[in-house]
Amino acid sequence: MVNAVIPFRPVNPKTRLSCILNQKEREEFAKSMLADVISVIKSVGCKATLLSTSPVSMDGAETVVKELGLNEALNEYLSVLTEPVMIIMSDIPLLTKESVLRVISTEKDMAIVPGIGGGTNVIFVKEPGRFTADFYGASFVDHMNIAKRNGLMVEVVDSFKLSTDIDEKEDLVEVLLHSEGKSKKYLESLEISISVEKGRVGVHRSTHE
Amino acid sequence: MVNAVIPFRPVNPKTRLSCILNQKEREEFAKSMLADVISVIKSVGCKATLLSTSPVSMDGAETVVKELGLNEALNEYLSVLTEPVMIIMSDIPLLTKESVLRVISTEKDMAIVPGIGGGTNVIFVKEPGRFTADFYGASFVDHMNIAKRNGLMVEVVDSFKLSTDIDEKEDLVEVLLHSEGKSKKYLESLEISISVEKGRVGVHRSTHE
Repeated sequence: MVNAVIPFRPVNPKTRLSCILNQKEREEFAKSMLADVISVIKSVGCKATLLSTSPVSMDGAETVVKELGLNEALNEYLSVLTEPVMIIMSDIPLLTKESVLRVISTEKDMAIVPGIGGGTNVIFVKEPGRFTADFYGASFVDHMNIAKRNGLMVEVVDSFKLSTDIDEKEDLVEVLLHSEGKSKKYLESLEISISVEKGRVGVHRSTHE
Repeated sequence: MVNAVIPFRPVNPKTRLSCILNQKEREEFAKSMLADVISVIKSVGCKATLLSTSPVSMDGAETVVKELGLNEALNEYLSVLTEPVMIIMSDIPLLTKESVLRVISTEKDMAIVPGIGGGTNVIFVKEPGRFTADFYGASFVDHMNIAKRNGLMVEVVDSFKLSTDIDEKEDLVEVLLHSEGKSKKYLESLEISISVEKGRVGVHRSTHE
């Protein structure tokens, strides 16, 4: 069974969304995106484990609390695993069953999905002991180099759904247009909707305090 | 044979890149991206036709000049076609043979690839007479609605490579990281490279006047 590890920060997450969501809303929205990720992960038969910076309880997932930086927490966690592992970000609510299956069915030693802007959104490694995570900055290039150095054959999975991480106000357009999960419903409950001005697509919130 | 139609604007294109490229450079860069698109289109056995706002000559493609808006030009052109057609944007230099093959091998009546931000980057229609293009604004939703109204079954192709259109400075990160074509070489010739500041990935130009 594939162990899916989802790094998560429950308190004051997604600060780049502060222009449209207050802290409580950002925490709720982050949990909605996480719920969408867990739901798809479970649907493909993976075990979901949250690697969280503080205690949090989510349906369908175990929680491991580590008060460490993302890389330290991940690498400490990975070092004891022997079964295939998928590290998957909690802010990619467009994910689909099909796109995740493309990742975990790779014939290579490892599959990786870049995030928009140089990051990494998903890593699947058959032998976790042969890999070290190095998130932050241009992590996609770093992860490709780590794989090469460790002699791992890598498949880069080409998926818009998995490459789209939600960090900024403009990214909410993608959630509203291309997902059908809890994150979209949560945004709609706040009366956030698509707006088109001068041909450019953005989002508008009618009830923003 | 699939007829690939590429709308193109040779004069003063990509104005949102003015912060890093002057007009002549934007025209050269737009042509480099177009060359990458034509190269992949030809490699999968499609015929390439530029639908251009002014005369332009590119290796491997025919040019049809129409001094009309994008939708008027496209729909006038589509109205006389009887063979399968692919409308493909000229600013998606990350495209690969595999991703384009996924589009043109659809079993549905039509395949579509959304662009980041609500747009449409690729449309493939087996019977062009049954479809009308409506670009600008939230065109992905509009195109899905047009397909539905006309009784066309649609496949939405999930590809980061095809969904990534290059409009703004930050988008150049994707060209430098995820493509290997003429566009990347052109940016490198201008000494534009990846920069990482405070964990955020951007681009830097060392020779910018």
